[in-house]
Amino acid sequence: METAGLSLSRDSAVPLSEQIYRGLRAAIGDGRLPAGGKLPSSRRLAAALDVSRNTVTAAYELLVAEGVITVRSGTAPRIAETLPQPPAAVPEVPQPARPALSQRGQRAAANPWAATRRIAGGRLEPGTPALDCFPRDAWGRCLRRAARTIPSAGLFYDQPSGLIVLKEVLARYLAAERGVRARADTILITPSTQASLSLLATCLADPGDTVWLEDPGYLGARAAFDTAGLRIAAMPVDDHGADVSAMAAGAMPPRLIYVTPSHQYPMGARMPLPRRLALLETARRAGAVVLEDDYDSEFLFEGRPVAALQGLAEGAEAIYLGTFAKSMIPGLRLAYMVVPQPLAAPLSAAQRAAGLYAGAIPQAALADFIDGGHYRAHLKRIRALYQTRGRYLAGTLRAALGNRVQVADPVGGVQLAARFAQSVDDRRLADAVNADGFGVAALSAYALDADARGLVIGFASATQADAAACVAAVAAALDAQRSG
Amino acid sequence: METAGLSLSRDSAVPLSEQIYRGLRAAIGDGRLPAGGKLPSSRRLAAALDVSRNTVTAAYELLVAEGVITVRSGTAPRIAETLPQPPAAVPEVPQPARPALSQRGQRAAANPWAATRRIAGGRLEPGTPALDCFPRDAWGRCLRRAARTIPSAGLFYDQPSGLIVLKEVLARYLAAERGVRARADTILITPSTQASLSLLATCLADPGDTVWLEDPGYLGARAAFDTAGLRIAAMPVDDHGADVSAMAAGAMPPRLIYVTPSHQYPMGARMPLPRRLALLETARRAGAVVLEDDYDSEFLFEGRPVAALQGLAEGAEAIYLGTFAKSMIPGLRLAYMVVPQPLAAPLSAAQRAAGLYAGAIPQAALADFIDGGHYRAHLKRIRALYQTRGRYLAGTLRAALGNRVQVADPVGGVQLAARFAQSVDDRRLADAVNADGFGVAALSAYALDADARGLVIGFASATQADAAACVAAVAAALDAQRSG
Repeated sequence: METAGLSLSRDSAVPLSEQIYRGLRAAIGDGRLPAGGKLPSSRRLAAALDVSRNTVTAAYELLVAEGVITVRSGTAPRIAETLPQPPAAVPEVPQPARPALSQRGQRAAANPWAATRRIAGGRLEPGTPALDCFPRDAWGRCLRRAARTIPSAGLFYDQPSGLIVLKEVLARYLAAERGVRARADTILITPSTQASLSLLATCLADPGDTVWLEDPGYLGARAAFDTAGLRIAAMPVDDHGADVSAMAAGAMPPRLIYVTPSHQYPMGARMPLPRRLALLETARRAGAVVLEDDYDSEFLFEGRPVAALQGLAEGAEAIYLGTFAKSMIPGLRLAYMVVPQPLAAPLSAAQRAAGLYAGAIPQAALADFIDGGHYRAHLKRIRALYQTRGRYLAGTLRAALGNRVQVADPVGGVQLAARFAQSVDDRRLADAVNADGFGVAALSAYALDADARGLVIGFASATQADAAACVAAVAAALDAQRSG
Repeated sequence: METAGLSLSRDSAVPLSEQIYRGLRAAIGDGRLPAGGKLPSSRRLAAALDVSRNTVTAAYELLVAEGVITVRSGTAPRIAETLPQPPAAVPEVPQPARPALSQRGQRAAANPWAATRRIAGGRLEPGTPALDCFPRDAWGRCLRRAARTIPSAGLFYDQPSGLIVLKEVLARYLAAERGVRARADTILITPSTQASLSLLATCLADPGDTVWLEDPGYLGARAAFDTAGLRIAAMPVDDHGADVSAMAAGAMPPRLIYVTPSHQYPMGARMPLPRRLALLETARRAGAVVLEDDYDSEFLFEGRPVAALQGLAEGAEAIYLGTFAKSMIPGLRLAYMVVPQPLAAPLSAAQRAAGLYAGAIPQAALADFIDGGHYRAHLKRIRALYQTRGRYLAGTLRAALGNRVQVADPVGGVQLAARFAQSVDDRRLADAVNADGFGVAALSAYALDADARGLVIGFASATQADAAACVAAVAAALDAQRSG
């Protein structure tokens, strides 16, 4: 008892007083040292353990502070009498092997999007921008300047929906470039489009409500809708993007309609104006909201992007979603949405309750980066690079696979969809190709009802050598599957 | 028809070709120019509008790209026949004045936390750290270095639950300073404790499940639980923090138990070890998870903080929540949680589906900031400052209000709770004080069933002049209320 059952390690990174404290606490906690019992005086324990008395005192003080022991001068420290009695109130339930996930937790964890991330970090993964072209120096300077100059109010909680300075820059940019009707007070800055979708899916729809989703379509959106408990109705996609007229009488009236009209994901179609107007008219009649995900219109390689659908809306039936994940980097974690004015305040309150905040200093830095012309210069540079890389990949696929593949030169974006003429199991194909770490995705993984077979391949980060190697792997895997 | 109904403004910032494009699109959209009709040739329209032919051609090309008009050489441009027919499939519903919020959207927008933010940005608002002490230069340097040196993988989507480098630094820090059992792979980085709570409230509980919440307690937690549709049971708080033994047979078995054992929010009590062990035992028996919000243990003014409850847990019954909102700045948007290992993967997948990402570069900068010793130095500096400011505020309150107030010198943190002896309407009192912009909160706003009257006042950002002015305003408002 002189050492209170303690054994100390002098080689440990844990300070000796901490070791004493932890050891006593553990021994008291599990009953080796009984409640109400005595401990040696600090002097005697120090001598027994061959440590300084201060070391023991520090440990004892902490135990006193916690109420585990009491010390009165002239007597030995005493372990408290009131060690916990298990309360009787709570009925005992079988203890799970791990804390149980709720039903919605299971839904969130098991979304189909999660499965697409088994191969992480391949350079030909869809959605990958040219990470090697990110203007690290210019961005670092903007960050440093923002850290030094951002007003104190920006460092606090004042603006859960984003910094005014960034919203004002964005409102101007979106009006000029995209025909979006935005004001600073109708913009919400979020950490990602995924966060925007998650917020909208819960705040504008209840479990069991219907959302119309492009088929094939963006898996991130599907994950957000699945997680929110929505019923997903497949909206067919053709060469003009989503076809709202195909949603015949059987379809459930939607609360939400999710579309990527500028550059359909993943097929790449651009939705013409008549179809845009029909979509808005449908939404208006149904009392639904169109979620326009304009994830990559900055990268249209030729001509101007079609003006945003949101700018065509007559009422409050469209919400515009944008992101800096592709035009800058995903790791920036900055995205935004433009919402009808009456929704701005409630969505901002919901955003605060969900903690969907974007960092303040990066927001200030981004406003500076855009205002200083860096953003336009960066876009110009990567647009040319992406076009070159996209054409090279498409051309190499056609040259290597001939009539086994259908693939057009991409008109924008950071990935393309290649369809196969032969009937292939594209998931097995993707797995085979990704054995070499490329990160391509099976087109059928994006489909709900549609029969889409092929591969979705990122090109923005792919050098010619990467692209050639990937195409060779695709050709070999196709051969193997045909003969297998 | 020669000018197709267009009128151009030469003073506008909108380019002329864009004005032509928009004008024609609008006229076609609303039927002023009928489907199938002709437009003037680009040469004739250019002459009629007195603009260059290229200007008109640019507008026409865009309309062609959108499928709104067709152009064949030698003939006049023609408006497409297939302008949208409103589809008949969707039943018409009365159009709401704004897109309707879902039931859960209404819940999220109407949480009681939102109401506390009517007075924003007051220097005595609870939760405000010393914004003027934020080490802007050191942080700016760390950000810039991180932007330059972060590996490309960090710039991508690879780590939705946070950068490994920061998690490793945190795991070491938490083990040494807080007795938390953490490994890099059991830490999730989020943008805020609010995000952590929101994720846990949905993934570990379903609507209607019960959570035990300290009373009075943290409104942000209450907002997260309200938004998640949970039933909240009030757990009484005394001078030793939350009293789990008071949760008698009537209380519903909890799925979650939320506590702030290091420094009860907002009352400031420290929970002694016996009560901590009783809490864990209760959770274990109920199959519940304890959410330990350790929001400000870095600021204990004297002695060491009590080791975290999480480190005492025997099984998987505790989740540890920490944040850099108080030790650095709220605008940093960096927080974290330490979860039982079996929950790490599903919670990370759910985090990805919800888009609850923290910025990558600030994470790398923070790892650097901690590793380089800046964090400890900053904590040491503000700890002393906060203690001085806290004592000054408490002393000034006692001196001015005498036996009308109960307030102790704060032992840590960035705010204190002052209780009033007389029976006051503390919400009216807070409103009166905040007419001068101080930002204090009524204690009763934090209460569920408890009868708590007083004010919660931030002191970390308050100079002596701020504190004295606020106390004078409180005294005047108390006098007015007594005589009123």
